[in-house]
Amino acid sequence: MKLLEDRIRQDGTVLPGNVLKVDNFLNHQIDPQLMDQMGAEFARKFANMGITKVLTVESSGIAPAVMAGLHLHVPVIFARKHKSLTLTDNLYTAKVYSYTKQVNNDISIDRRFLDASDRVLIIDDFLANGQAVQGLFDIAETAGIAVAGVGVVIEKRFQKGHQLVEDAGVPLVALASIASFEDGQVVFAQD
Amino acid sequence: MKLLEDRIRQDGTVLPGNVLKVDNFLNHQIDPQLMDQMGAEFARKFANMGITKVLTVESSGIAPAVMAGLHLHVPVIFARKHKSLTLTDNLYTAKVYSYTKQVNNDISIDRRFLDASDRVLIIDDFLANGQAVQGLFDIAETAGIAVAGVGVVIEKRFQKGHQLVEDAGVPLVALASIASFEDGQVVFAQD
Repeated sequence: MKLLEDRIRQDGTVLPGNVLKVDNFLNHQIDPQLMDQMGAEFARKFANMGITKVLTVESSGIAPAVMAGLHLHVPVIFARKHKSLTLTDNLYTAKVYSYTKQVNNDISIDRRFLDASDRVLIIDDFLANGQAVQGLFDIAETAGIAVAGVGVVIEKRFQKGHQLVEDAGVPLVALASIASFEDGQVVFAQD
Repeated sequence: MKLLEDRIRQDGTVLPGNVLKVDNFLNHQIDPQLMDQMGAEFARKFANMGITKVLTVESSGIAPAVMAGLHLHVPVIFARKHKSLTLTDNLYTAKVYSYTKQVNNDISIDRRFLDASDRVLIIDDFLANGQAVQGLFDIAETAGIAVAGVGVVIEKRFQKGHQLVEDAGVPLVALASIASFEDGQVVFAQD
């Protein structure tokens, strides 16, 4: 999505360790017009696939997920992150390891909101190591529902999340796909 | 907002201790069409007030805040919640006590995203004791910016948050205002 690539070039900052900082329009300050356009693009890419719900994980996934849900006309569910719970009878839960924070968290979704007929689209802001997506895959498997696709705003294609989604046989859309960082500049993948 | 009151009557559940559960359309599963309509309503109520940014706190505030920002055509910033930090040079921070979780958290906003010319609209999903709003008031005061209004999806008017906003002299819009709970039913305030 050229609009997004331009915005990343203009407003993104590459920090040491291949960290791309886009907190001025994506995950701290949010540009709602851009989010709306990205939601429309996700809806276009995943049209006619029978998607019944959008799933994401709090917090940074919520804005793009809600916009995707708006344009797909389906409900959005955000999984909650928390320390491991003891009472989980009414929840689907999965473990998610955060490489940036180096902690294990559980994510959970209330069982009332998923049923076997659901076909879900997973949306997130970043796909890097794919831990959050894997957690949602785990929940989908436990709930017996189909994952129709994964849509991310930005993927770092050289990290293992991209391969993880491909290996699962799930269609993946990244609105911006980063092939590498060179001299502090983003190099986008050419598809 | 009648649409919202109807939805609360239809889908909300009143739990013991005056807890209104609306996690099937507001703060776990989200109805994006309803969010969009609520964002439009916030924009209508706070039109022509010179608002430059929408502020909220993660996570449940993000969806209504992004929709308000979309319709007001201004950026949205969500304050991040975390345990108290030691390094806060580049952050505005405030303490927020959570009555439901009985813990103190810090909330923070990167200093780069606020400047003295900003006039902000604070948006949140619930106004009960007003601790999150107070935290954002504190940040606004430290940053030297004006708070043009507070918009919440649902307020429990009988708790102290409503009075807190009024005492601050800040215009308050609640799309649904709960006067009381009677026999497990919601009684809306008549304005």
